[in-house]
Amino acid sequence: MQTVAIVGVGLIGGSFGLALKKAGFSGQILGVSSDRTLRQALDRGAIDEGLPLAGAAARADLIYLSQPIGRILDTLHHIDPLVRPQALIADAGSTKGAIVSLARTTVRHCQFLGGHPLAGREKRGVGAADADLFAGRAYVLTPTDSRELETPAARAFIDWVRRIGAVPVVLNPEEHDRIIGFTSHLAQLASTALAATIAEHIEPEHSLNVAGPGLADTTRLALSSYDLWRDILATNTESIEQALTAYINKLDHLRENLRTRQMQEEFEKAGELAAKVRR
Amino acid sequence: MQTVAIVGVGLIGGSFGLALKKAGFSGQILGVSSDRTLRQALDRGAIDEGLPLAGAAARADLIYLSQPIGRILDTLHHIDPLVRPQALIADAGSTKGAIVSLARTTVRHCQFLGGHPLAGREKRGVGAADADLFAGRAYVLTPTDSRELETPAARAFIDWVRRIGAVPVVLNPEEHDRIIGFTSHLAQLASTALAATIAEHIEPEHSLNVAGPGLADTTRLALSSYDLWRDILATNTESIEQALTAYINKLDHLRENLRTRQMQEEFEKAGELAAKVRR
Repeated sequence: MQTVAIVGVGLIGGSFGLALKKAGFSGQILGVSSDRTLRQALDRGAIDEGLPLAGAAARADLIYLSQPIGRILDTLHHIDPLVRPQALIADAGSTKGAIVSLARTTVRHCQFLGGHPLAGREKRGVGAADADLFAGRAYVLTPTDSRELETPAARAFIDWVRRIGAVPVVLNPEEHDRIIGFTSHLAQLASTALAATIAEHIEPEHSLNVAGPGLADTTRLALSSYDLWRDILATNTESIEQALTAYINKLDHLRENLRTRQMQEEFEKAGELAAKVRR
Repeated sequence: MQTVAIVGVGLIGGSFGLALKKAGFSGQILGVSSDRTLRQALDRGAIDEGLPLAGAAARADLIYLSQPIGRILDTLHHIDPLVRPQALIADAGSTKGAIVSLARTTVRHCQFLGGHPLAGREKRGVGAADADLFAGRAYVLTPTDSRELETPAARAFIDWVRRIGAVPVVLNPEEHDRIIGFTSHLAQLASTALAATIAEHIEPEHSLNVAGPGLADTTRLALSSYDLWRDILATNTESIEQALTAYINKLDHLRENLRTRQMQEEFEKAGELAAKVRR
């Protein structure tokens, strides 16, 4: 792996470039983004050169799609004629079913391997990029056949995933989307729904003052921008519906058992999971 | 206000003692708790003397009930014969309807004033007490008639509430319980339900790895002990049922609008509230 093209040099793409360099990658890192973002990315040292997609794809051994999901789908519609046959296209989109399924029909001249680094932070953009963003975090890879992980291009890529400190986890796209529907998308909507419910039922001066410190934690995700979530909700709708249904059923159960010992069981089950999430 | 009896010297009671001293209170602070807790509280300097309820009540100008809700209700059943007529009984229970309504029938020889300091932290007990716990936080007072705030004993108490850095907010007990049902109790159950739902639907190894960093925030309250919540759920059942119903309706609305522009409105409404909570 000598030349990497990062398409979409935002928080994830910029961090990937910085992380590769920190881990000792000595090849060329090309960036494909708006002119303004490319200037920022060059300043930060996240890329070595900015150029249009066609020029970058023609030179790259790894084409790393770290755009928003909708833009990744757009790119997959027209990238195939631009790539080198030994190249690997990898993506970092946070839903996998739609992307992997499209790539299977549009990418024919080189290999595609879907992925999702479980890394993020509140701030967006290359300005917030961090060489350590992936360190200690899971990096889900979603081949549709495990042999996709054994090609030379995939082996080289996964080797760098490990070198930047991430922990590869292999799931098929549907498993990924089901799990993440609960652990990320449901968590987001639970927080958004809580904040929206309080906004509608409680006078503003009281929702700010007459609240425990825990409200800040539970509404933190509600700060997320809809821009990022539109594509997620549109491409993982079925899993999210299932997760919401399970959550609503659980809330119904709690409502019916506010004064029974069932509640103790639920608190204990929930406390165990919350403690594990922190380990 | 010369002598204060803190009944239940845990996180809140211990912090109240430390805060009074830091604010310049030069009278006596008596503590009523288990022997072990009294020793700890004396070591921390949160109280000056530990003794049984009858002895403490006989000397106190302010009797500060900072026990769990169920214990406050117990104390209110038998404290009346023990008090001095000029004394004020104040409580720090986190639901107010049941406590204030019981106090109206059982406390006849001195004044009672309900209250709820909006302060807390994950750790419990006098070991976690902090002289600055109340600083900058709302301190809800719940008179059933505003004239209760104008007695000499109440004025002296409220003056000290201000001096420890808290911000008095006056609400009637029902308003308090309705508001806190959304901003604290619903937030708790949303977090508990989320963690319990994930525990039931996702294999343990995935719920830990394949999750964004936001899951730690949204499940932090799920670490809370059921011990504390049993009394809250039992004494604010109706408000919590209403808050849960509103929340379930909102989640239903989101589930039906995952791909529509309604979702953008909800994200914006929620984001505004979440930003205000942080100011």
